[in-house]
Amino acid sequence: MNRLNELFKIKYPIIQGGMIWCSGWQLASTVSNCGGLGLLGSGSMYPDVLRHHIKKCKQSTNNPFGVNIPLLYPNIEEHINIIIEEKVKIVFTSAGNPKKYTQFLKSNGITVVHVIANQKFALKCIDSGVDAIVAEGFEAGGHNGIDEITTMCLIPQIKSIIDVPLIAAGGIGSGGAMLAAMCLGADGVQIGSLFAASKESSAHENFKRKIIESKLGDTQLTLKELTPVRLLKNEFYEKIQNAYNSNYSKEELINLLSKGRSKKGMFEGDMKNGELEIGQISASIKNIESVENIMSNLINEFNLTKQELLDL
Amino acid sequence: MNRLNELFKIKYPIIQGGMIWCSGWQLASTVSNCGGLGLLGSGSMYPDVLRHHIKKCKQSTNNPFGVNIPLLYPNIEEHINIIIEEKVKIVFTSAGNPKKYTQFLKSNGITVVHVIANQKFALKCIDSGVDAIVAEGFEAGGHNGIDEITTMCLIPQIKSIIDVPLIAAGGIGSGGAMLAAMCLGADGVQIGSLFAASKESSAHENFKRKIIESKLGDTQLTLKELTPVRLLKNEFYEKIQNAYNSNYSKEELINLLSKGRSKKGMFEGDMKNGELEIGQISASIKNIESVENIMSNLINEFNLTKQELLDL
Repeated sequence: MNRLNELFKIKYPIIQGGMIWCSGWQLASTVSNCGGLGLLGSGSMYPDVLRHHIKKCKQSTNNPFGVNIPLLYPNIEEHINIIIEEKVKIVFTSAGNPKKYTQFLKSNGITVVHVIANQKFALKCIDSGVDAIVAEGFEAGGHNGIDEITTMCLIPQIKSIIDVPLIAAGGIGSGGAMLAAMCLGADGVQIGSLFAASKESSAHENFKRKIIESKLGDTQLTLKELTPVRLLKNEFYEKIQNAYNSNYSKEELINLLSKGRSKKGMFEGDMKNGELEIGQISASIKNIESVENIMSNLINEFNLTKQELLDL
Repeated sequence: MNRLNELFKIKYPIIQGGMIWCSGWQLASTVSNCGGLGLLGSGSMYPDVLRHHIKKCKQSTNNPFGVNIPLLYPNIEEHINIIIEEKVKIVFTSAGNPKKYTQFLKSNGITVVHVIANQKFALKCIDSGVDAIVAEGFEAGGHNGIDEITTMCLIPQIKSIIDVPLIAAGGIGSGGAMLAAMCLGADGVQIGSLFAASKESSAHENFKRKIIESKLGDTQLTLKELTPVRLLKNEFYEKIQNAYNSNYSKEELINLLSKGRSKKGMFEGDMKNGELEIGQISASIKNIESVENIMSNLINEFNLTKQELLDL
């Protein structure tokens, strides 16, 4: 029995990453209905919006689902209260210190998973008593670790220091990569980009099309001094780079960013002026597919790759 | 039958990366004697030194071995002439355009492999008629691709556009990671850091000790404007970062570098003022081991991981 399947009561150890502007109730409930674990991305939701998505998710699936809370966004306490009131049973926290909320959430009967990108925070997670850890590599989209450690190097190292179930994230876009992550020591995977480009994703069609047209080298980790984030290169990205080259102040950079850029890009479809968060693996995504197809492809590729390895 | 084993006439699809200051005849011949493919790193050798190492390698093993030629170093033409005169049968070229020497080498009966870090150069390799490709991810030590693509994302993408055998490099430090690379589509692996820290490596003891003491986050890709290179952080690395922060000119940076820094660090053991090239996976290396142990550990871990996957 897979430890993650047991922990979350799911069929496949596939977590759909909770992403801002992409993972609302349609995406999360469909992933859960297909046997994975769907996560609502609360980072782009006002409290009442989050409550709406939780309610719709409960109506749309009888399977477990969860909420991702990026600790760098506002409304954290309100979000947590809603999650408890609505009896959500699984929470993934990210982009912050796991010590802050883990025990409070657990005391409310919630399974808590925290996302880390280096050894130091993995140890903090253990001290905090999390139920599982997501180790996310440099290739992942969106907010990212300062140490730039890749999935290939991060997973074995984290595996060697923790006992709780380990979820690999960053660069996973196929069943082969899912098996690869398990060879490295993971119990399962968290997948973002592939689901961001799915039919059920709430991302704008323009963004989905830009994802499937992207090639290797079209994303870059930037804004390392503020909060490192991996973006798809566009005019807005170039603006950030120009700001660096002309020695902008930190305040000017923050000002450049604080204009609803991510909503503009990922949700409203402004491919020039919006902030487009996506992983390196987007280069391997060729079609906008249904979650059902994505899930069955992942499982089929996983089994096929396993079969091929037997002949090695 | 594994395609790489067939191409190189080796027992295991494990290539020891040709590294400056680390991979002389002792390392290369021992790897070849253990069933992998040893490579001499010619980038740190004067022509007569290279000839000496080739001769010693031929005396020390009856198995195939090769030479790595980083095309950004001087003495390329002299090196190639020596390789042909000494009847070396395998050449890995890197850090340059594969079109320049591939056909000339092949017309002299040499099997040619080129190292790439993105799709564009993979296609150039195919046009050039190489016999195999090494796809090297962002996590690898030493000189590195400008696009920062990780092994996890690079391998499936390159696999999808080439038919020749594919060797994964970057982040591979265990038999589990070797199997992971194969799940991603590689036929075999090139391993650098693990062999740089081996007993048979010609690196200075101080450097080997620094490798095994290093932790996640202790390496960083830098010098992106010149030739990107992954270094272990030390005083020299800090000097480079300070140069960036005080807006040094490109010439001043080159001047800072051009003082035999890599020899000073990796070969002479000056851990403060030397340039120390190593991969992110160094964080997983805990002991200075013999090549024989490293090879048998890799094979045992590979088989064990494969066995464990059967139970998934």
